[in-house]
Amino acid sequence: MLDAVADLLLEAGYDGLTIDAVAARSGVHRTTVYRRWRDTGGLLADALDAAREVPWEPPDTGSLAGDLTEINRQIVAALTEEPSITAALIAASFRSPAAAAALRSFWEDRYAIAAIVVERVAPGVPARPVLLASCAPVFYELVLLRGPAPGDELAERYARLAAASVSRSGAAP
Amino acid sequence: MLDAVADLLLEAGYDGLTIDAVAARSGVHRTTVYRRWRDTGGLLADALDAAREVPWEPPDTGSLAGDLTEINRQIVAALTEEPSITAALIAASFRSPAAAAALRSFWEDRYAIAAIVVERVAPGVPARPVLLASCAPVFYELVLLRGPAPGDELAERYARLAAASVSRSGAAP
Repeated sequence: MLDAVADLLLEAGYDGLTIDAVAARSGVHRTTVYRRWRDTGGLLADALDAAREVPWEPPDTGSLAGDLTEINRQIVAALTEEPSITAALIAASFRSPAAAAALRSFWEDRYAIAAIVVERVAPGVPARPVLLASCAPVFYELVLLRGPAPGDELAERYARLAAASVSRSGAAP
Repeated sequence: MLDAVADLLLEAGYDGLTIDAVAARSGVHRTTVYRRWRDTGGLLADALDAAREVPWEPPDTGSLAGDLTEINRQIVAALTEEPSITAALIAASFRSPAAAAALRSFWEDRYAIAAIVVERVAPGVPARPVLLASCAPVFYELVLLRGPAPGDELAERYARLAAASVSRSGAAP
């Protein structure tokens, strides 16, 4: 069922993601789909919750800039693969409050897990702002500015800026 | 006419922004609206181009962190005012390629003007990445994570991180 949601979202966007289409694609009776999810926002939210169950290990390259670059590379890859389920979910989040809430939970979950990359080099420095300073420009450039995908260069540029801001605060190299 | 576009976008979102509704609201004949803009994406793009014509002066507070904080405060204000035309335009940009292109031009224009705040304290440091490192987390927190609006705290946090990364590079205080 969740595969059917992902397929439809990629093929036809949020407009093509109807309960009927999900039922037809997945072979599950539409009454069952309706009873379980009520609307497409609920379907999207469930699909994202399923993605959260997939274990994710933060990188450990030996340096903060290296770890942040690796995380940014994963974000660049997720946003620029063709088709991108992440990009489709972000677009859908502007139509479905349930999808928006699920996307937020998914990201906050990932930032909580990733906090260790800041904490192990800079104990006492709040990790989340550093992670967001590194990751947010990648989302902004690719999702909101819809820039050409400059790949690794983009990933590394903002990782280095964020890492430099931590070193500067004197907490750790 | 452009006021009618803004009003409709705020009232009913992109779905409510039809050529017919714009014609009715603005009192311009629908044939004229069709001939001039063809579709709602064109209307949105024109509305944004009009916004670009409004002169904007980058802040000059005496410090890079201060200037970046002031820019971020303006972004927080634009995104959290009720209703927010900026937030509505961002949502619409996921439905209309013309609106997305116009939004991108508007922002790139602003970053080009704002480059002076980096250049006057750190000549030789590329300004755009520093501006984006400061501004992008504000967009990400408010637009994509849809966080509660923490106002000035959010504006200052990322401005200081971005400013610290410049000082760290040794270019200038």
